[in-house]
Order: sequence, then C-alpha cells, then structure tokens
Amino acid sequence: MLIVMKQDATPEEISGVVSIIAAMGYEARPMPGRQRTTVGLVGNDGRVDSSTIAGLSGVAEIIHVSKPYKQVSREWQLEPTRIPLPDGTVVGDREVVVMAGPCSVESEEQILAAARLVKAAGATVLRGGAFKPRSSPYSFQGLGRRGLELLDLARQETGLLIVTEAMDLDGLELVAETADIIQVGARSMQNYPLLKECGRLRKPILLKRGLAATITELLLSAEYILAAGNPNVILCERGIRSFDPTTRNLFDIAAIAVVHGLSHLPIVADPSHGTGHRDMVPAMARAAVAAGADGLLVEVHPNPERALSDGGQSLYPEQFDKMMREVAAIAEVIGRSLATVGTVV
Amino acid sequence: MLIVMKQDATPEEISGVVSIIAAMGYEARPMPGRQRTTVGLVGNDGRVDSSTIAGLSGVAEIIHVSKPYKQVSREWQLEPTRIPLPDGTVVGDREVVVMAGPCSVESEEQILAAARLVKAAGATVLRGGAFKPRSSPYSFQGLGRRGLELLDLARQETGLLIVTEAMDLDGLELVAETADIIQVGARSMQNYPLLKECGRLRKPILLKRGLAATITELLLSAEYILAAGNPNVILCERGIRSFDPTTRNLFDIAAIAVVHGLSHLPIVADPSHGTGHRDMVPAMARAAVAAGADGLLVEVHPNPERALSDGGQSLYPEQFDKMMREVAAIAEVIGRSLATVGTVV
Amino acid sequence: MLIVMKQDATPEEISGVVSIIAAMGYEARPMPGRQRTTVGLVGNDGRVDSSTIAGLSGVAEIIHVSKPYKQVSREWQLEPTRIPLPDGTVVGDREVVVMAGPCSVESEEQILAAARLVKAAGATVLRGGAFKPRSSPYSFQGLGRRGLELLDLARQETGLLIVTEAMDLDGLELVAETADIIQVGARSMQNYPLLKECGRLRKPILLKRGLAATITELLLSAEYILAAGNPNVILCERGIRSFDPTTRNLFDIAAIAVVHGLSHLPIVADPSHGTGHRDMVPAMARAAVAAGADGLLVEVHPNPERALSDGGQSLYPEQFDKMMREVAAIAEVIGRSLATVGTVV
Amino acid sequence: MLIVMKQDATPEEISGVVSIIAAMGYEARPMPGRQRTTVGLVGNDGRVDSSTIAGLSGVAEIIHVSKPYKQVSREWQLEPTRIPLPDGTVVGDREVVVMAGPCSVESEEQILAAARLVKAAGATVLRGGAFKPRSSPYSFQGLGRRGLELLDLARQETGLLIVTEAMDLDGLELVAETADIIQVGARSMQNYPLLKECGRLRKPILLKRGLAATITELLLSAEYILAAGNPNVILCERGIRSFDPTTRNLFDIAAIAVVHGLSHLPIVADPSHGTGHRDMVPAMARAAVAAGADGLLVEVHPNPERALSDGGQSLYPEQFDKMMREVAAIAEVIGRSLATVGTVV
Repeated sequence: MLIVMKQDATPEEISGVVSIIAAMGYEARPMPGRQRTTVGLVGNDGRVDSSTIAGLSGVAEIIHVSKPYKQVSREWQLEPTRIPLPDGTVVGDREVVVMAGPCSVESEEQILAAARLVKAAGATVLRGGAFKPRSSPYSFQGLGRRGLELLDLARQETGLLIVTEAMDLDGLELVAETADIIQVGARSMQNYPLLKECGRLRKPILLKRGLAATITELLLSAEYILAAGNPNVILCERGIRSFDPTTRNLFDIAAIAVVHGLSHLPIVADPSHGTGHRDMVPAMARAAVAAGADGLLVEVHPNPERALSDGGQSLYPEQFDKMMREVAAIAEVIGRSLATVGTVV
Repeated sequence: MLIVMKQDATPEEISGVVSIIAAMGYEARPMPGRQRTTVGLVGNDGRVDSSTIAGLSGVAEIIHVSKPYKQVSREWQLEPTRIPLPDGTVVGDREVVVMAGPCSVESEEQILAAARLVKAAGATVLRGGAFKPRSSPYSFQGLGRRGLELLDLARQETGLLIVTEAMDLDGLELVAETADIIQVGARSMQNYPLLKECGRLRKPILLKRGLAATITELLLSAEYILAAGNPNVILCERGIRSFDPTTRNLFDIAAIAVVHGLSHLPIVADPSHGTGHRDMVPAMARAAVAAGADGLLVEVHPNPERALSDGGQSLYPEQFDKMMREVAAIAEVIGRSLATVGTVV
Repeated sequence: MLIVMKQDATPEEISGVVSIIAAMGYEARPMPGRQRTTVGLVGNDGRVDSSTIAGLSGVAEIIHVSKPYKQVSREWQLEPTRIPLPDGTVVGDREVVVMAGPCSVESEEQILAAARLVKAAGATVLRGGAFKPRSSPYSFQGLGRRGLELLDLARQETGLLIVTEAMDLDGLELVAETADIIQVGARSMQNYPLLKECGRLRKPILLKRGLAATITELLLSAEYILAAGNPNVILCERGIRSFDPTTRNLFDIAAIAVVHGLSHLPIVADPSHGTGHRDMVPAMARAAVAAGADGLLVEVHPNPERALSDGGQSLYPEQFDKMMREVAAIAEVIGRSLATVGTVV
Repeated sequence: MLIVMKQDATPEEISGVVSIIAAMGYEARPMPGRQRTTVGLVGNDGRVDSSTIAGLSGVAEIIHVSKPYKQVSREWQLEPTRIPLPDGTVVGDREVVVMAGPCSVESEEQILAAARLVKAAGATVLRGGAFKPRSSPYSFQGLGRRGLELLDLARQETGLLIVTEAMDLDGLELVAETADIIQVGARSMQNYPLLKECGRLRKPILLKRGLAATITELLLSAEYILAAGNPNVILCERGIRSFDPTTRNLFDIAAIAVVHGLSHLPIVADPSHGTGHRDMVPAMARAAVAAGADGLLVEVHPNPERALSDGGQSLYPEQFDKMMREVAAIAEVIGRSLATVGTVV
C-alpha cells in the first residue's frame, strides 16, 4: 500500500502517518519525490483499513499495490483449477461444459421434457431453479423442495448432472443434498454468511457475478469460499448493469479474459441473463466460447410461450440445437471441445 | 401492460398474442395504429411474466404502464407513512432524524465515547455495526453478539435509540431483540428471505438502497416487507455505483425527491457511504436535508485515526457539531426541524 | 407515442392533454383503462417534443412506441446495406474486413513498417491517426497534414486502403481528400455539425459509438448522416463506460447482435479500445467475429514499446498474425470469410 | 508515475523498464518491496504515454501519483478563481449567480417574456439556446443567428447578461460577439478544436460536464482552455449517465464538493438537465446551493406547455419564484447570498 501525501504536506503530517502505521504494527517507508512524498506501507496482510489512513491529515490518496485477494489469484496458484464433476468431465480444463435448461422447474412434465431435449442436443448438466429470487413479491417464487425432487427425477432419467440455486442457509442444506453444482446467484454474491457456509461444503459452487460487482469483488467473494475451505469455485459472468436499456444487462465477455489473467479459477458464461433476449443468445454463446469460456449456462424451455419466468430469453429447442453445433465448431478452432458424458471412462 | 407488435407483424401473430393472454386469464385489447398494432393487457395483477410475452413471435416490445409495486406507492396511500420511534419522535413527518455513530462497534470505551458525543451534538439515534458485511474475508467482521450488548449499554447510558444491521436470519433475531431500528444493508437489499422475515416483525426497518438498484427495485424490496405485514419501512439512499472513481459511490440526492414523488415511505440519506470522504460529508448532509431527506445516517468516530473500518469517511467530533448546526438551519428554511429527544412529551 | 395519465388524473387534465396535442397538429386518441387512462398520439413524425407533454398536469409518463430513428432502421430497409470499398471488397456482406495499424502515424518508417506487417498478416485496410483527440492538452496530438501524406505513401506502397479520423470541419475536408474511409471518433459521435458535413460526402463513414452512448443514440447519430444524404455508414463498437476499472472500457459485444437486429447498417468492432490491454485483444477479436461483426479495427504497432500513444493496447506483429488465423477460422464457422485484396476482380 | 511489476518479474524485465524510461528522458527509480518491485518514474511532465509502459513485459500495473492536469488544480493556484461579469457580479466568490431562461430561444415574444420573469424573480443572467445540439436530426435545431439577435434584444430591454451555447468554430465566433458567457455543452466537452479556440478568447466559458465524463476528464477539458490562454472557466455539473431510467440523468451534487477540493475554478449546477423533471428541480436547486454551488443554471419558460424543447423540465414562473426565495435563504445559512444586479457599484 502506498500513501501519497499532498504536495503541501508538512513534515509533521508525514511523521504522523509514519507513526500511525507503526502503531498498527506495520513498517512505514517514506519516499520523498520531486513534488511530493509517498509513504510505503510494508507487510500489509489485508487487515489494514485503508479508509482510515486515507483520512489522515496531509494524505492525498491511497494506492493499492497488492491485490486484496490471495488464494484465488494466479500469483498464489499458477495452474488452472480443475474441478471434476461426478460424470467424469472437468470444469477448467480443455472441455467446455454446457449447462442448460429452463429458468424455473415448473412441473414434472416440463422438467423432463427440458432434460431430454438439452441432453439430445449435447448438454451434460441440467439447470433449473427450485428457489427463485424475484424482484417482485408477486412473481412466481419457485416450487422449492418439490422442485429439487423433480430435478433429481430428471437426473435419474437422463443421467444429466444438476445445477440449481440456493438462496439462504436453510435452502443451501437442501440444495446441497440434491445438486451436483450449487449455484449462488447474482443477488447473493455478497451474502457473506451464505458464502462462508458454501466454503464448508465440498461440492462445486457456481458463483455468479453480481449486477454491479467489479471483477475484483467477484474474486473477493470467491475468496470467502476458498478461505473457508472449498476450492471448487466456478465463476460465472451473467451481465452487469449499464446505462443502455436495450439489453437486460450488459454481457461483459471481456470478463472471461480478465478472470483467466488474474485467477486460476474457471469461468463460465450465461448469455441468457447476459442479454435477456432469445434472439441474441446464440451469437453471445458463440462469442463467449470464442473468448475462452470454460462453459455455458443457457436457458432453454420446451415451450417458452408457457414459461412461468424468463420465457423471452429461453431458447426454442431448435435454436439450442443449432447453437450447440456452432459452439462445438468454435471450441475446436481454439483447441477445445464440448464436454460429453462419458468423455473420461 | 402494452404489447407493441412489430410493424410487419402478421394478423396470425397478433391473434397468437391475444389468445396466449386470454389463456393466462387476462383480457387482451388490440389497438391498431397507423404503423403498427399495440395490444393492451388488462387486469395485470403483477403475476404476468412479461419476458414470456416479449418473446412471442411478432412482438417488438413490452411496455409497463402500471408500476410493479403496489402497497409502497403513493397511489395506494396518499398520506406519508409516519413511523413512530420509542422516544416519541416520528420518521416521515416534520422532523429530521439524525442517526450517527461509528461504522463498527469496536469496544465499550469507543461506543460510549461515540454515543456521548453524537448526543451532545443533537443526534437522537446511535448507529454502529455489530455484524459487518465486508468485501474481503480478511477484514474486521464486527464484534457480533458482544457488539449488540455494547450498543444496549450505550443506550442505557445516553437514552439514544439504536440502529444496527442484520445480515442473515439468525442475526436478525438477535438484532431485533436489541435494536430500535433494524438496518438491512445495501448488499442485502435483494436478500428476499431476509426481507420476508423483516416483514414478520413490527420494528422499523431501515432498508438501504443496493449499489446498483434502481429506485423501482428499492421500492420492490420494500414491497416485500410491507407485503409480509410490516408497514414500518424507512428507505435509505447511500450512493450507487458509477464510472467515476473520484468518490466511493455516487450519492444520488435526487432519489430523495423521486421517492417522495412515487412512495409514501420516508427516506433518509447516508452521506458517509454516499461519498466515502470525510471532507465531503457536511456539504452532502446539507444538500440531502435541503432536498427534503427525512433523516441522516452519518458516521462519526471519537478518534477516526484509530477506527477499525471506514475511518476515512468518519467525521471528527467537531466537524459533526458544525454539520448539525448547519443542517438545523437548512431544515428551518424548508419548514422542518431536527428531531430532539423529548420533542413529544 | 403514448401518454400515460396518473391514476387520479381529472377529466379536465385528460382533455387538456388532448387539446394540446390537437393544437400541435396531431391526433389524440384517449384509451380509458381499468386503473388509468392512456392517450395515444397518432401521426408523430419525430418532431414532437415529448418532454413538453411529459410535463403537462396529470401526466404520469410518456412511452415511445416508435423508434426515434427512421432511415437507419430495419423497418425502413430490410436488406443489409452493402458498402463497396475501392479495392472491390464490401463491408456489410459475407466478408469480414480487417482494418489494422498503429494508433497514431508517427513517422514514415513507422507507418510503412506497420502497413507492411498488417498486409502480410492479411488485413486490407490500414488504420492510423493523423489528428488525435487526447484527453490531456499535453499529450501527443498527431502529425496532422503530414500524417495524411504518410498514410497516402503507405497506401501507394502496399495497396492497403486507409481509414483515419477527422475531428472538425477543416480536418474533415483534408481527411476526405486522402482517406478511403473517414472515421468519426467516439468523442465526436454527437458533434452534429461534423455529422451533417459527413452526410454531404459520399465516402464511407466509420462512426464510433460514444463512451456513454446508447445504441439508440448511436443510430440517431448515423441518422444525421443518412438524412443529409450519405448512406455509407459503418458503425463501430469500441467499448463503453462502466463502473469496473479493470478494463479501459467495457466492450459491448452484444451491441453487434443488437445493431444487426435493429438496423441494416454494418457494424465493426474495435477490441483494442474495447479493452485497453494487448493481452485481451485476440480473445475479444475472436468473440466479435463469432458474434457476427462485419469487420475489426485493431491496433498493431511494429514496436509497441516505442509507441507515442496507446502502446499498451497495440498488438505485437506476431500476436496479430496469430489472431488473424484464428478469426479467419471462426468466420468460416458462421459462413463468412476474411476479406482479401482482389477478392473481386 | 509508479510502475508496479508483477510478482514474478525477472531482473531483466525490471531493467528493461528502467532503460526504456531512461530512453524517454526521465529518471527511473526502482523500489524493491517484500512481494514485488515498484519503479518510480520521476520528472513526468504529462507527456509520458502510460499505456506504452503498461504494456511492457513484466509490468502488472501503472499507478498515477500526480494528477494529469496542472493549471486548473488547487496545487497550482490555492485561491479560488474569481470571474468578473460585465454587471459587476463575480462568479467564484461569495455570491451565488442564477442563470435562468428557456431551453431554446423560440420567438421575440417568448424570450422577452422569459427575460422579464426571470429578472423579476431575481436572476441576473438569461439563458437560452440559439444553436441546439439535438439527438435526433428531426428535432428543432434552434433559430441560429436570429436567436442571438433576440437574446441581445432581451439584454437591452432587461439588463440581464446572456449565456448561450456554441457548437462549432463558426458558431463560436458568432456567439462570442453576443454572449457574456459562452456555453460549451455536455456533448462538446471533449471537442478539442472548440476548446482550444475558447482558450484564445477572454470571455468566460461555461464548460458543462459530459454525460460520461469523470471529474478528472472535466478538469482536463478545462485545462485545454487555460493552457490556450483563457483563465475564465466556469464548470457546470448537469447530470451524468446512470443505470436508473427514473431520472433523465443522475445529478451528481457531490461533484460540487469534489471540484472545490481539487480545483480553484468555480462550479455551477444545472438541476434542470440534472433531473429532467420540473417537479424535482426546486429540491435539487436547494441541494446544490446547500452543497456550495457558485451558481445555478435553470430552465424556466413563460409557457412550458408550448415549449419547442425541454418543456417538461422547465419551471413554471411561480415555481421559479418560490425556488429563488428558498435558495436565497439557504445561501445565507452557509454565508453566501444570491447575486443581484448592481451589487458592486
């Protein structure tokens, strides 16, 4: 951490900063420059509250030289984290894992139909919400426990793995019994009690980026999970907030490249929430895979006109089929391939 | 809800939309225009998933004519909600209620010193976090249960009321035993299980706007609490995310005027998080009161250089004192006054 | 245009709105609903100032049913606009046109070296700024007229076409004499005198999206050029402003799909400004082509360490070479191919 | 400027950075830390292209210690710039200057009525656009030269000063003949040819913040004017872009306090564009003055229902009157007062 002093900072102000840093138990190293003095704080272990130092008399600005996260960073672990799934595929390796299905589990008929169609097109993981966070209290809130049972049924019938969301500690316990991958949604990205509890599990956690989260904040939230003991975190870009209402969110595909540079964790992309419009999903799925995404999370519905939620961003079965063929070809271009069940015997 | 059809929508597409709306149990009213047809959906009770209709063939766009929230709106209740506090003051009336204190409860000595100084300057509610949501797992996370005990002690000694944050369901139960006002933080604004539980209580809830929440979303989150039975919601503007790193957040003072137009709920302002810099807090506190805020939430610390969190945005005691005199005078200009203990005998 | 009245609007307020619309020369069509009345304004030719109507007594909100632009829209012209370049290639058709070169023209040696290397890798258009808009008055501002001469020299030697920016009316005249494609930069996207003058030319205009421009605003700026007579507009996505400082800008790849849905104009992508980091450019170039971009605008420098501007986002020659091979393969996947000189004899 | 090296940077990479800095003519000062080395670049005069250094091998990040602007900063000039107007009032001193009038000059009758009413309420400067930048080519574009004549007429009749916008170099010449204060609009904030030309004049320039401009960028644009010789720059906050469509723009009142901290230049606030809704303007005008704004720019129209532009954000005469009384009282609270004609004899 570097403390930049004001140009007119007095020697007293500089020594004040130095002595407060020393009182905190760190080493302060003043570096006089041509126009102003900078004080280096050496040995910062992440517990220094920079806001306090920023408010000291004579201080112009605080500059962070080290990243605030540790275990999730490439500097901590150079090799990509490889997260094995129960069917033998691995997230974070050469394979691109496609997770697809409806926004919500609505009925046995619907989820079975969805499972069959996404399997037929080549997906290996079934998505579907049992507990749904909805902006309005009057919107459909999910089938809850019954939804989990239906997901389990679909898994038994098709052999697909299950990814589904947990919203609170009670739900987490239930979800962890059923899901192969536990989703922490965008609205929960900074729900720290939930993150800590995820850290006590061993199942893979799919951590979605919050609507207004910087990539640093996304990595810090992942750090909560790793710090509590669970290394199996899959990040997910799903669009962030912007000023342009044309799309539901702004799909930040560059986040894929950024995360791959800063962290060893895998990152998948959700072009359905990323755009909010069915017609844009295939192009954005292609783009995400071309950018190096380790997987896709896509909404597909056997009958989007009848969907209880997110119908407008759910692909028709035939759209999904075509999309799968395209992304498979693009994966090949960059030396990867779509995950298939039984890839690894 | 209005469904705008594409210019080249076929009669079949139009009648398709009409029949799907009918199948949902609502009335569809097609209105042919010069260039295109618009279909009105009559009787929308908030349960229609507009995304599904948006995805129908021939549909160009969905337009929401009604607000998605109900009980929080001015159209539902014209008169401002008046929330009485245990000391007889009322939030949402003529009085401007000042809640002040440190970011975190750190020690008995610190919280008592803080309580005494904010009381001396004229505040009537003491703020201070016992459970702290922090971006990094390595930052100070609050004293927890012990923090609540210290807040209680400070209340006994000074007569100030207490506002403090709850982060999850377990914490909520504890906080509800001690606090006079329960704070739901910005990161929890869309934690729906928490909101629903707040709705089962009767104590006032201070609901902070999320970092990337629109005002509509803030009001929808408040709707969760009202819909579950608790009408005592105080909204709080505390800065939102923007592209300019100069300030910690972008303090959206206009939100005060917007909320007063759309809703009957009171709204207070937090210029400390709104700006992140101590030197800007007094000017922004004046601005918020001038804009009509029903109260202020301000960080003050007896010794900001030693604060464990947010020291740089905490006012020095003498700054707070001066700020209180200024905001009192500004309140008078617009026909209000600062709340004082014992205002109502 | 639809005028949504407040729930408690009086009959007088409704008839007031109707008569003001009539006085403006348009037809007003009141539509009473269950909760409130909506008034349709029929015959809006784009000259109605909606703000004025929004401010009338009893009005809750204005809703725009028609798009504010015309000639640029798909509804005006269904077929994609095909813009022929002097070398026989066409922007907006099956070919993907790559425009590459340094940020600024710096010297004869530099621009010739750049031209040779981008040509060798397969680009067909040379980019390079002679007039540079720079945030700081102390930064390098470009070689001006001499820069144009050097671009011309490079064209003569290599046969590449030239794209370069004009910043004002005087510069436009000069640039139009030399350039094959005239660039209007992001900061000039709403420089209406400049846009109108571009509309009087016939040369293709590369119109870059402004940092905070919605896609609607980008299309409206293009409309200025078409309305003034020049149909040859190539749009360019180059990143927009967001809250996350990790990348220089937020590269909005979805804009490619959005524009292709709303407009018949071609759109190219600039991953160099879109990300600001050399290491992310190849992944984002692949993503843009996968998403359907009609071309790429990429910064490449023979010696990035010595660049006078944007060195950090300029590709090394060997990076560009590899990128070209990858995007060529991805173009094939979606049925396109990279433009090559002499494609059309 | 500080160059933070990657944790695993090799000695060769570090010495490479040092020698490239030396080759640029600056001094490089390596500072080994516990985890990584930081290299200080000493003597940066603002001409270093940091992007180039950021792209060197082994570099993790560039950190700017000095501000990129000079003459506009408080460190260059501690005392506030006082800008005298022809009527003897001073912008940037104790007085708060109110500039009011319609969005556009529409007719002799309209501008004279507007001038009389804003004068009667206590404003001293008349605003009104003759050249109008409009997003759509089909919107009213202003009366041009005739508009300037009408403003001159209004000045002769009422004694008010005139502020009006110039959009290009030709317009600037015309506007400079008539206006007392020349406005550079938000869309032109980075029109550098226009800024440079403003720097050759002596008349005060009202420089509006761009929709997506950081405060640093606003100050850099002002630096263009000062660097070219004109010290008389009045900054203007008028709302920036955000994700919430509730208001037209996000009125960044904190910018007033930020600018007063960083720069000696005065700053005024435009609550009309800042919110876009007439009903919010008075509250935001009060807030801006409470925050320390050196003046206000407010849209008032004698007959907003008939306005050709921005009618919905224009105050009714009686609203403006009440607003003036309120802001006068708030100015007193913080030791200021509204400017009045003839203040200085």
